[in-house]
Amino acid sequence: MSKPYKSFSPPWVKDVAPHGSYRSIYRWGDPAFFKIPRENLYKLLKERFSLTDEFFEKPSELGMEKVDFDKPVVLARKHLDFLRSVVGKAHVKTDSFSRLSVAYGQTMYDLMRLRKKIVENIPECVVEPETTEQIEKMVSYCSQNGIPLYVYGGGSSVTRGVECVKGGISLDMNKRCNKILKFNEVDQTVTVQPGIYGPELEKALNEAVERFGAGRAYTCGHFPQSFEYSTVGGWVVTRGAGQNSTYYGKIEDIVLSQRYATPVGVIKSDNYPRTATGPSIDHIMMGSEGCFGVLTEVTLKIFRLNKEGRKRFSFMFKNWDDAMNAARGVVQGEFGMPSVFRISDPEETDMMIRMYGVTETPLMPLLKAKGYKEGEMCLMLGFTDGHSSFCKSVYKNLRKICRSFNGMSLTGVVTKAWESGRFNDPYMRDACQDFGIVIDTLECTVNWSNMAQVHKDVREYCHSRPNTIVTTHMSHVYPQGANLYFIFITPMTELDDLKQYHAGLLSAIQKSGAAMSHHHGIGKLFAPWLEGQIGGNEMAVFKALKQHFDPNGVLNPGGTLGLDLSDEEKVFEIKNP
Amino acid sequence: MSKPYKSFSPPWVKDVAPHGSYRSIYRWGDPAFFKIPRENLYKLLKERFSLTDEFFEKPSELGMEKVDFDKPVVLARKHLDFLRSVVGKAHVKTDSFSRLSVAYGQTMYDLMRLRKKIVENIPECVVEPETTEQIEKMVSYCSQNGIPLYVYGGGSSVTRGVECVKGGISLDMNKRCNKILKFNEVDQTVTVQPGIYGPELEKALNEAVERFGAGRAYTCGHFPQSFEYSTVGGWVVTRGAGQNSTYYGKIEDIVLSQRYATPVGVIKSDNYPRTATGPSIDHIMMGSEGCFGVLTEVTLKIFRLNKEGRKRFSFMFKNWDDAMNAARGVVQGEFGMPSVFRISDPEETDMMIRMYGVTETPLMPLLKAKGYKEGEMCLMLGFTDGHSSFCKSVYKNLRKICRSFNGMSLTGVVTKAWESGRFNDPYMRDACQDFGIVIDTLECTVNWSNMAQVHKDVREYCHSRPNTIVTTHMSHVYPQGANLYFIFITPMTELDDLKQYHAGLLSAIQKSGAAMSHHHGIGKLFAPWLEGQIGGNEMAVFKALKQHFDPNGVLNPGGTLGLDLSDEEKVFEIKNP
Repeated sequence: MSKPYKSFSPPWVKDVAPHGSYRSIYRWGDPAFFKIPRENLYKLLKERFSLTDEFFEKPSELGMEKVDFDKPVVLARKHLDFLRSVVGKAHVKTDSFSRLSVAYGQTMYDLMRLRKKIVENIPECVVEPETTEQIEKMVSYCSQNGIPLYVYGGGSSVTRGVECVKGGISLDMNKRCNKILKFNEVDQTVTVQPGIYGPELEKALNEAVERFGAGRAYTCGHFPQSFEYSTVGGWVVTRGAGQNSTYYGKIEDIVLSQRYATPVGVIKSDNYPRTATGPSIDHIMMGSEGCFGVLTEVTLKIFRLNKEGRKRFSFMFKNWDDAMNAARGVVQGEFGMPSVFRISDPEETDMMIRMYGVTETPLMPLLKAKGYKEGEMCLMLGFTDGHSSFCKSVYKNLRKICRSFNGMSLTGVVTKAWESGRFNDPYMRDACQDFGIVIDTLECTVNWSNMAQVHKDVREYCHSRPNTIVTTHMSHVYPQGANLYFIFITPMTELDDLKQYHAGLLSAIQKSGAAMSHHHGIGKLFAPWLEGQIGGNEMAVFKALKQHFDPNGVLNPGGTLGLDLSDEEKVFEIKNP
Repeated sequence: MSKPYKSFSPPWVKDVAPHGSYRSIYRWGDPAFFKIPRENLYKLLKERFSLTDEFFEKPSELGMEKVDFDKPVVLARKHLDFLRSVVGKAHVKTDSFSRLSVAYGQTMYDLMRLRKKIVENIPECVVEPETTEQIEKMVSYCSQNGIPLYVYGGGSSVTRGVECVKGGISLDMNKRCNKILKFNEVDQTVTVQPGIYGPELEKALNEAVERFGAGRAYTCGHFPQSFEYSTVGGWVVTRGAGQNSTYYGKIEDIVLSQRYATPVGVIKSDNYPRTATGPSIDHIMMGSEGCFGVLTEVTLKIFRLNKEGRKRFSFMFKNWDDAMNAARGVVQGEFGMPSVFRISDPEETDMMIRMYGVTETPLMPLLKAKGYKEGEMCLMLGFTDGHSSFCKSVYKNLRKICRSFNGMSLTGVVTKAWESGRFNDPYMRDACQDFGIVIDTLECTVNWSNMAQVHKDVREYCHSRPNTIVTTHMSHVYPQGANLYFIFITPMTELDDLKQYHAGLLSAIQKSGAAMSHHHGIGKLFAPWLEGQIGGNEMAVFKALKQHFDPNGVLNPGGTLGLDLSDEEKVFEIKNP
């Protein structure tokens, strides 16, 4: 369906970022992989933003230059010597590139700064631990010596979570602390070090027969969009979610137990599926984003893999109301949950049918003939997971409900198109930003009874910015509500502009009655809004825990979770959460 | 199937306990309802304990006497006046009966003490709050004035959870703080006051069409054995489980949000199904057993009711191994969970087929002919919940797995027999104890890989006591393990005897590698073992939270969760949990 560009085609950047360059730090994933917008999407951007071909003539702010800045390491020699004695000389890095490469994540604010070669908030050194014991020693040492300690996993944070605001040390977990420690088929669990990438874990589980002598293949069930370049540790400490969460649950549903190195000693939860032995240690540590301790080991539930049974589906609805009601009907139906389950609003649907080439198929005239209107119709897509009989039964019930809300089946083709791009959209983000067009997202949790309102209010704010495409979808769907995802696309190159728009969007989300984060976490970017979201007394609980675990305030300091923010630095949009 | 007793029949006590008597406090449930052992069971007890009919000639320690003790109220008049000003004069009770009636729960130790008229650890007064505001005022006042504050709901604690060790005030939540505050069909939630009894809530949800103008009937999904006389608040603060938990989850899976009155102010969690906004406030408060605050409101998920679709099943297995493997196969099968799912070990199976009259049916010879041996065979029973198509599919897959482990279907008849008695076994406990025979339980969580070992080790300890029947079953089953339930039946009338046996049993559970409580909670009875179970650093987290919420130590003091126990009072059975 993809056609050659007829007239002008932008000079999309397809050069591998030079070794040691700013671009090599901020660019998503595989340096040799590129994803550029389809012609249809390119046309849409031009049309919507009233841009000419000239706008796309020359990419800018690529950051192809070698990292070069003058920020001497001020960490005392004795501290560096100590770190070297713990992890080995080769695994304590103080060169500029290493320091900058763990300072930022994948927050749009980070990408912009790196494109502009703005270097701030970098650690004094990067340490690559290998074992739990090494981390425990260093956490203890940092606390005793008042050295700020940050943790870097896959670097996919979109909340400035990893940023080393107070300098100090950053632990790069992905380099060596990335092993599978234990596979237990009887209990269906796997124990890993936090620095392991998603695909490595998934591959091992898929190949459990060969790798561990298991009786069958397994899956981890957790597939965030950042899957390929995010680590298990990051999933856990931020309370992440995967795209299959409607079936498998969020990471907090998948975690069975954890081990943390904290300044007051090791915290280790147990491996039992449920207990009634006081408050949950697991749920105190999950979401602590490196402020209470450093995650050193985690045991996850694993699930029997059955790809053959998977049922793909997609339905087109006449409007957002019908689509929402159908989605709610499905997840409240008590017949089991679909796995991937996404419902796009009209603007996103419009974009998707262009991106996936649906506009060019005979489907469009058919939809139009049946009264499905562009700008109103909404796409639902997804697939099931689990036992084949379960998949069949879920699909059958789901189809029935969708039909009752005038959902027209588009078969599994659209879903397959979505699947092919499900993990590589971040590459396209980079391609567009080379021409000054930002693609960024915010997401929130919404109860069903407030879904229409939040959708309306937040989009209204988003569209208050001229030349902005705002696509919205629901994913991670529950009987009580769902995650609502806002993606904005707009020409934007200034940091202040981004900051202001982002802040307004966050405030709009809170005012509308949604929770400001379903799975991105809080980090340092969202932190000023947290107390307004959860309440002052609730924030005081987090602070009491912080005081207990980290009395010297060395863990991820500088705003994370708002634990060390002054009242003046906070934003209060809602009085009574 | 029930036959009249041929020869001797014990004079089972069927007198309604006199108003104001000790018996009226400790006896389970409806004063006019009685459940006595079937003849078969009575014979079994006699046989196993080598008892004669003479043993059963006269019941004793019935506590029919009126409550009468001399423990003057020492709480200062000004405090009483304050309480009266908050809740009204009629709702502050200082008479002996009222004070004793909330001092104990349904711990066997409690029943024994009341039968022996041992009065200790009673509150100065009983207060019956009606509103959240009243409770908030009193919590604040008690903290400021150093007055111990206890909470009493349905009084079904089996951990000495409600016992007023330090005197003070007991809030009786069941009397007036028992309303349904909000029903939200779109979000499928109900908000209640904590003092509401299970059946009241369930009835309202079943009648949602009439009561709330809903489109259909709902269920709360939570049915502990104590269902009829336990309150929602108790379920929540102890992390309870219902018999249908394999499908609906434990109460912590059903709770959506909570509100607590604490000495440092109101703690209120949010209504979103999932968030990534720091640690979970809900999971910090659930399991705090009245030590961090008093639960004032709770929002629960509700579920569509579909009793018609329910599939009942029961299977007999040749041995415990087959039964365990079949159970594990079912819950790891990814085809959805059965709702009630219980697997009895040989000794329990033996007792159940006697209790339910299976021994007298043509089934027994058939089983024997097929090689199922008494003393080896194991019974699995249960039913499904959810959409009819889901029920069918779960049942079909379950049956297939059971058959592959030589499970012989006994149809749903046995399950129906179990259902008829599922909530009223506590009445039989009282009937037996009238003759000095104790029926008590302990339960724990076990991972699959350790199930056989725990079963063996703990039963070995149980049987180290002569004349003891020990039945064991699995319920609340998960892909990673299950709850293992030990019921012991033995002639026992001395407090010290009970204490010692109970302590040994708890130690045996811990040493075997199981978690000491899956859903009973910790209370004051299990508290000495808690730190040994979860670890010292983890206990320190609970203590830090306690210090934050309740700096003056007025909430449920006297050992609850081990928060105010000295090291000498603690029991350490395992070094490295």
